[in-house]
Amino acid sequence: MIKNALNIEIPEYLEGLGKLEPYQGVWNKLQKGWMDEQTVPPAIKARLPHSSKMHNNLEEAILKCNPRNGMTVSFHHHLRGGDCILIQAITILANMGIKDITLASSSLTSAHESVLPYIEEGTITQIYSSGIRGTIGEACAKGVLQKPFVIHSHGGRVRSVQTGKIQIDLAIIAASAADEEGNATGTHGPSAFGSMGYAMIDAWYAKQVVIVTDNLVNYPCVPPSIRQNYVDYVVATDTIGDAKKIASGTTRITKAPLDLRIARIASDTIINSGYFKNGISFQVGAGGASLAVARFIREAMKKHNIKGSFLLGGVTSYGVDMLNEGLFHAIFDVQSFDAAVSSSLKEHPYHIEIPAGLYANPFNCGCMINKLDVVVLGALEVDVNFNVNVITGSEGEVRGASGGHSDTAAGAKLTVVVCPSFRGRLPIIKKNVNNVVTPGESVDVVVTERGICVNPKNKELKANLLEAGMHVREIADLEKEVDKITGTPEKIEHTNKIVGVIEYRDGTIIDTIKQIKV
Amino acid sequence: MIKNALNIEIPEYLEGLGKLEPYQGVWNKLQKGWMDEQTVPPAIKARLPHSSKMHNNLEEAILKCNPRNGMTVSFHHHLRGGDCILIQAITILANMGIKDITLASSSLTSAHESVLPYIEEGTITQIYSSGIRGTIGEACAKGVLQKPFVIHSHGGRVRSVQTGKIQIDLAIIAASAADEEGNATGTHGPSAFGSMGYAMIDAWYAKQVVIVTDNLVNYPCVPPSIRQNYVDYVVATDTIGDAKKIASGTTRITKAPLDLRIARIASDTIINSGYFKNGISFQVGAGGASLAVARFIREAMKKHNIKGSFLLGGVTSYGVDMLNEGLFHAIFDVQSFDAAVSSSLKEHPYHIEIPAGLYANPFNCGCMINKLDVVVLGALEVDVNFNVNVITGSEGEVRGASGGHSDTAAGAKLTVVVCPSFRGRLPIIKKNVNNVVTPGESVDVVVTERGICVNPKNKELKANLLEAGMHVREIADLEKEVDKITGTPEKIEHTNKIVGVIEYRDGTIIDTIKQIKV
Repeated sequence: MIKNALNIEIPEYLEGLGKLEPYQGVWNKLQKGWMDEQTVPPAIKARLPHSSKMHNNLEEAILKCNPRNGMTVSFHHHLRGGDCILIQAITILANMGIKDITLASSSLTSAHESVLPYIEEGTITQIYSSGIRGTIGEACAKGVLQKPFVIHSHGGRVRSVQTGKIQIDLAIIAASAADEEGNATGTHGPSAFGSMGYAMIDAWYAKQVVIVTDNLVNYPCVPPSIRQNYVDYVVATDTIGDAKKIASGTTRITKAPLDLRIARIASDTIINSGYFKNGISFQVGAGGASLAVARFIREAMKKHNIKGSFLLGGVTSYGVDMLNEGLFHAIFDVQSFDAAVSSSLKEHPYHIEIPAGLYANPFNCGCMINKLDVVVLGALEVDVNFNVNVITGSEGEVRGASGGHSDTAAGAKLTVVVCPSFRGRLPIIKKNVNNVVTPGESVDVVVTERGICVNPKNKELKANLLEAGMHVREIADLEKEVDKITGTPEKIEHTNKIVGVIEYRDGTIIDTIKQIKV
Repeated sequence: MIKNALNIEIPEYLEGLGKLEPYQGVWNKLQKGWMDEQTVPPAIKARLPHSSKMHNNLEEAILKCNPRNGMTVSFHHHLRGGDCILIQAITILANMGIKDITLASSSLTSAHESVLPYIEEGTITQIYSSGIRGTIGEACAKGVLQKPFVIHSHGGRVRSVQTGKIQIDLAIIAASAADEEGNATGTHGPSAFGSMGYAMIDAWYAKQVVIVTDNLVNYPCVPPSIRQNYVDYVVATDTIGDAKKIASGTTRITKAPLDLRIARIASDTIINSGYFKNGISFQVGAGGASLAVARFIREAMKKHNIKGSFLLGGVTSYGVDMLNEGLFHAIFDVQSFDAAVSSSLKEHPYHIEIPAGLYANPFNCGCMINKLDVVVLGALEVDVNFNVNVITGSEGEVRGASGGHSDTAAGAKLTVVVCPSFRGRLPIIKKNVNNVVTPGESVDVVVTERGICVNPKNKELKANLLEAGMHVREIADLEKEVDKITGTPEKIEHTNKIVGVIEYRDGTIIDTIKQIKV
């Protein structure tokens, strides 16, 4: 065991993952010569001319890809709660008797609950994902997987593929429109889901790529979000899922009064931060109060006649309205939080679909988060050093997603975390968090209903907010106040077994997830 | 020396190039497991957030890229005769005292004549290019370069970069519009030149990428033909060249009566070939009669009410008109032969910019040429086995370009070569060609003013043309007839020294270019 920069113990080696490198600080690796890390070439293929890629069912296409024990299979989660392709594909592989699969989905949602039996029986033995939730998340925390799972950020996932940590044997990519050669998009069709940002790296690197669509269109499919030269096979199927289930839960603006109150304070924080000016670039994360901040920022931009540069990230109808109102010059869309934004993505030249690598991969020459001014993010827990947990719940279960949280926090000039100070009887502002996903070094300010805590490293921000008469306070004081209200929760009982690791965006390990006692 | 599939002697090793593999047939390598060839990872980089990429002059940016002796520098030739960036950059490097440069431009045109002194003095010692012309071509044939030059196809160039045969240290990419982060395009601005198809692979693989623009636009530049995550530095300059010089010479439709007559016969050949039907995909190459075929095909499509699928390749205003008339559903544009097509490329959703790899790289999962029905190509010489020379002239000088010639010939169902049977006193249809660029195996028919010669492998085509009453004849007979008219030209006198090689698209060597005696 060695201690990482957050003083968290990290094993130097973990069976099923190999050598681990401890987290060293947000940008330290870069300064030490980050770009020297070994990378792998994309898959290289060749094909005879005038040969068909079409298959009438997924099973047939998967068979062509030589499925084998120990393979890595990847998916995107753009259909979120509405996806039905992941479970179909895993079922087919299980029926073929394939074992020991590494599941590398860009994330896992409520749509994937029924994959649990395949984990229990050993069809799937390892998971790489941004998020794990529900019964799968509980089972993972209890140690159901034979190998440790890896929680990565959206940007970190691209890095993992490029450095060969994730070597995708088979990428199965759902598309709401595609042609016979595999040019594919999510921007139109009955199951339109918007951006295909997370799937692009899979298409570029996977040894075999299958496009599955319920809307085979005349050649060529436009826009070609994924291009034919990466695609081995195309499957026409009845449905890829239910796009109506994309906009739900974490991707809708809250109506809860407390969340709205926090969002209002966060909006005022931004307005008084010094960053609220013409040319501002802006992102709000999914869930709770954060999406709601967009609503207040929109009003404030109109009132103060502010014109922004770009909106980034998960895109809602709110964002599209702001583009159309001229409040922002452009939207960069790595993921659409509402199927309704698809037509804007298809038609508006400044609503731009971007790959996850361009969004947030630390391993390139300037991803979008490097140019971001302000990001608003949620939290399950925040500790007195501003470290944020967005992955494990109060009982140690895995119930969230890393997403672009640590990516955007690292890049943005102003990282605002919004959360209530406690939920029910559970403290949110705590002395220690169960797990760290985003290091406090990259968080500037935490906004709660009981006041605003500014990271001591950001003296100018604190001064600006105080001058504006805002309720700024020490996070340690807030933590004590919350502790008095909720009491200190019982410590989660863990075994010594590490069931999963949380990878920081640069590939180092920021935390481990230990098995909960049952 | 070993003999390749065309019975041409190829050295097994050549100083300055290393081990050579002889050409084995159009698709033979693929059938033997082509995709096993080693490839290299793209350049990997990292960058601190909120740092500037901007430089006010090219010299400053080049200095930042650590120029060194022996480096490989790349350019695109989309500005064709109007480019002024290549010579600027080479001059800067020469003034810095850099020697032994490998020049890897996608092609060289009349705009690059003034680079010759830098070749003579050893600033440039090797060239990888699709084409070499004029005084540089003459000097290259005489052996001015210290190392053998390599002529590659447009598709083959992408393969060479991906397999590390060309390892670009510095890519200098002219853009008619770009923003401060390096999002760049050729589709608008005072020097708009259309597609950036050839530059994309350079951006993805080069160790350092510099965008040079005379039109710095507000962030973000749309469409991002090249994306910011690949770009190290951006230079704002006065001019990148003269886009009016793009449409000239080989990229304009001929008015010469003989060429028009050949074009008319070629058009009739296509119409009667069996491939002229709804859904046809079509490409015409640059130069002479080939572009003119588009004119007659356009008329014929209207007359016969034929609706095509896509137009491919070098795009002219003619092509854009055909798109707008609904004769074709889409255009895939790897290179714009006329600056005037830029606005269509920017605005029309079915006028699609494509990277050269998607156009023609044999090393992917289905490039566009693999889906092409009909291509019309020019020739400097054709032999009785249908082998085509488009690179060396009657005195052994290098004076042409490989371009997409061998790529499209390999992929298209019907490859039509158009040429006069002789030019002045020079035979074009010959017993032997000076050099082979495109193997006869991939040519279906040669159309001349003295008749149509069908490759014996394509019996159905011959039958179709004969049935239509066309003047089909044996190529050997035509060769004899031409020989009687022109007489056999004196053999070009060569030394034994190989000054350059002609690479087939799969990386094998189809021919060598020997030093001409002076």
